[in-house]
Amino acid sequence: MGREKRLKKVSIIAWSGDLDKAYPVLILATTAAASGAEVTIFFTFWGLFLLKRNDRWISGKCWMTRMLHLMNRGGSKHLTLSRLHMMGAGTGMMKAIFRKNRVPSLDEFLEMSKDLGIKLVPCQMSMEALGLGRDDLIEGVSDPAGAATALEEAAASDVTLFI
Amino acid sequence: MGREKRLKKVSIIAWSGDLDKAYPVLILATTAAASGAEVTIFFTFWGLFLLKRNDRWISGKCWMTRMLHLMNRGGSKHLTLSRLHMMGAGTGMMKAIFRKNRVPSLDEFLEMSKDLGIKLVPCQMSMEALGLGRDDLIEGVSDPAGAATALEEAAASDVTLFI
Amino acid sequence: MGREKRLKKVSIIAWSGDLDKAYPVLILATTAAASGAEVTIFFTFWGLFLLKRNDRWISGKCWMTRMLHLMNRGGSKHLTLSRLHMMGAGTGMMKAIFRKNRVPSLDEFLEMSKDLGIKLVPCQMSMEALGLGRDDLIEGVSDPAGAATALEEAAASDVTLFI
Repeated sequence: MGREKRLKKVSIIAWSGDLDKAYPVLILATTAAASGAEVTIFFTFWGLFLLKRNDRWISGKCWMTRMLHLMNRGGSKHLTLSRLHMMGAGTGMMKAIFRKNRVPSLDEFLEMSKDLGIKLVPCQMSMEALGLGRDDLIEGVSDPAGAATALEEAAASDVTLFI
Repeated sequence: MGREKRLKKVSIIAWSGDLDKAYPVLILATTAAASGAEVTIFFTFWGLFLLKRNDRWISGKCWMTRMLHLMNRGGSKHLTLSRLHMMGAGTGMMKAIFRKNRVPSLDEFLEMSKDLGIKLVPCQMSMEALGLGRDDLIEGVSDPAGAATALEEAAASDVTLFI
Repeated sequence: MGREKRLKKVSIIAWSGDLDKAYPVLILATTAAASGAEVTIFFTFWGLFLLKRNDRWISGKCWMTRMLHLMNRGGSKHLTLSRLHMMGAGTGMMKAIFRKNRVPSLDEFLEMSKDLGIKLVPCQMSMEALGLGRDDLIEGVSDPAGAATALEEAAASDVTLFI
């Protein structure tokens, strides 16, 4: 590297609800936090489904959002691959490959994230649109916030990624 | 936030032609612009289809690009979800959910973007490859530009996102 | 642009294994390098498949990773479109459109990248998980590195993109 510049603050906008995108979000976040950086992950749209409790399925306040959650359950244990899902066969195989390589599960990464002080911020507007309440989400998430907050965090960060 | 740093300039490379990616592009862009930041969105590849006029369908200068536009119509009213599209049922339901939550439509967001002075820049190389002319695009877009311009804008920005 | 700021360093995290995402990765990288910037591309997860040799197919050290490579061959010549692939018809047509517009192939872009001194860094953890060895990858790639390195590069860069 030409110029030395320590990593002080990282922000990630986690938009995707895919298993294979949740991994880079959490791997990059925990790696940054472990090296001492302040890390914020802003979960928006499909990304919110990673923060959904695994024991919730049909959330929502109207038949439309309930239908959405029926079709797209969410929760760290239920995310699927963006390609090669193959009715679950590919996703199951990838999880087995990860286990064999001692890659932590998404659940373990989420616990690690909280232990490392990473701020897990759910997007307010997405929560309302998807009919998700605070009690639908896992424990330890921050107060919901909007796009303005995500942008302020991003402006103050050394690295900002949209994943 | 540890360090205060006002958001002065934001640039977004909008690559995706999905409804659910067009929303974060336009929500982040208009939020930034409303708070006083200078915002540029560089539309490339599938992202160009958001700028395509809704009353155009089969554009293109050869049978291949015409076929491409036949299969992938584009225009703010015709974008679909990246997941749960379900032959239109899922996309229709998501649009209804947005309407119910008073989320503006993509068309309204595009108008807002222009009113806020956001620069909507179509990628020159993509326009040529996809056989799109200036008259295939909505009014109010900037002159087409290339990757070098997108990178210069990004280097001058406080926040740059590839969506 | 309000403030002048020359583009000195660019880093890209290339996560996707799609043809239509490989293009922006390589176009932005070579454009930046051609203008004098130092460029690093960190290839992770599906992105590693762009660096896989075209003459390898079934790599991997166990039946699971071999199955994965069987289903998802990889190599610059075998990447497919993220949408409109249509059993190969759409991908073939898009490649023909690119050729007609004299857009270089991914292979040519990779050669150009090496000639311009762009660092092509494979993600160590992904290589192990996907059962890929150095001899499965094209020549001229850098030593594998981890997320910490990718974040350090990103922090030192003027522009960082996750594609």
